[in-house]
Amino acid sequence: MSAAPAPATAAILIIGNEILSGRTQDVNVKFIAERLAARGIRLCEVRVVPDDEDAVVSAVRALSGAYTYVFSTGGIGPTHDDITAACMAKAFGTVLEINAEAKARMSACYASKGAVMTEGRLRMARIPAGAALVDNPVSAAPGFKIENVYVMAGIPDIMQAMFLSLEPELAQGQPVLSRSVSGKMRESEIAAALEDIQNRHPDVEIGSYPAMGRAEPHVSLVLRATDEKKLAAATEEVLEMAKGFDKEAKEA
Amino acid sequence: MSAAPAPATAAILIIGNEILSGRTQDVNVKFIAERLAARGIRLCEVRVVPDDEDAVVSAVRALSGAYTYVFSTGGIGPTHDDITAACMAKAFGTVLEINAEAKARMSACYASKGAVMTEGRLRMARIPAGAALVDNPVSAAPGFKIENVYVMAGIPDIMQAMFLSLEPELAQGQPVLSRSVSGKMRESEIAAALEDIQNRHPDVEIGSYPAMGRAEPHVSLVLRATDEKKLAAATEEVLEMAKGFDKEAKEA
Repeated sequence: MSAAPAPATAAILIIGNEILSGRTQDVNVKFIAERLAARGIRLCEVRVVPDDEDAVVSAVRALSGAYTYVFSTGGIGPTHDDITAACMAKAFGTVLEINAEAKARMSACYASKGAVMTEGRLRMARIPAGAALVDNPVSAAPGFKIENVYVMAGIPDIMQAMFLSLEPELAQGQPVLSRSVSGKMRESEIAAALEDIQNRHPDVEIGSYPAMGRAEPHVSLVLRATDEKKLAAATEEVLEMAKGFDKEAKEA
Repeated sequence: MSAAPAPATAAILIIGNEILSGRTQDVNVKFIAERLAARGIRLCEVRVVPDDEDAVVSAVRALSGAYTYVFSTGGIGPTHDDITAACMAKAFGTVLEINAEAKARMSACYASKGAVMTEGRLRMARIPAGAALVDNPVSAAPGFKIENVYVMAGIPDIMQAMFLSLEPELAQGQPVLSRSVSGKMRESEIAAALEDIQNRHPDVEIGSYPAMGRAEPHVSLVLRATDEKKLAAATEEVLEMAKGFDKEAKEA
């Protein structure tokens, strides 16, 4: 039996003062993370940086060099604070140019709505030279891919549509399967037994998450693996262990 | 008039496979970000890394060297996947040891509930040598501060209580004030006028955030500054500009 190839890896780069100021609750990480896990791509890091050229360029270069894919969100609209396209061009030593295909798509979309291309809108057709477009089924103005970086909008509806349109291009790894066991337990009581199980099942990642706000102590134990049989074997042991503390512990 | 001192800066480090797997929606960033903005501390970066020693140690060193403060969340419980304390010790070249004060606080808390210190619980009293404790008003097991890194629990209720208890130690800068103007506008239509206003008000940061899911195009323009008068002057111009596109545009 040959070893499975190492899974593709990924990072998310969120470009947005609105996250760092606390004004906006990010929801893009969870969406992308779930899709990547289902596709067997390992999300290894997330960074949030401000709308600042040096910060964006530096983060793009670091993440692009470290992981198979980088997914950026935010900063590709038409206003002065949207600097992502220019930063991506700078990070990869290329220039921004009006992308003819992007302009054509946007013009067609506006025409269908009885609107026209304007100087402001045209700004969203400025794409780094050599980049491939990422479809925007929601509002036409495309994202793009430069080197191994997919550049998407920050608005969740648009980001999700863009991600779903680019997803088929991504490597297909072994999906990460997940099972969980929960019950009335204290982490401090189960810790030793749980660590023994983890040590016997190195290919299964076991996480322990206490729940707050319940009348009684409660823990969720989450098992993740790509091999269904290994996952099942570890889950069985965790369930048995948990029942030693709470007879009603169960998979949930 | 002397220039105001440069504000203190900060980064958040989230240590947690559960965020990277998409299982858990992070809510800690928004809480900390809002508190820091109100205190006049500039949140410059957020990183999420897995429960992996190399990843944590590397991120801690990078962020600790770059910012005034680092706030970490996650990984300080009693189970095998809680590796944060050990990583912090390694990052700063020190060792973990049973902290007598932490042990005493935890023992007192358990005794008050009719419980006892166990081997599993004692694991949470292992703190890097030389670190100062951060109070945990919720469940006794403390966080800690090592160098310029505050190490907190990942569970939002506990993290928030810990943050509020350490907050008085932080530098008090000029709070970042915020105002916003919203109306039925398209970003592409207002972009040029908005950029002019931004250029005339370099000490006010103006962000433009389109809203989705409304029948008509809608934009929120958020202005942020530490100087109330400068903020008011810029807000007045933005409101006037917005009324040129939507007579009912208003501060909101």
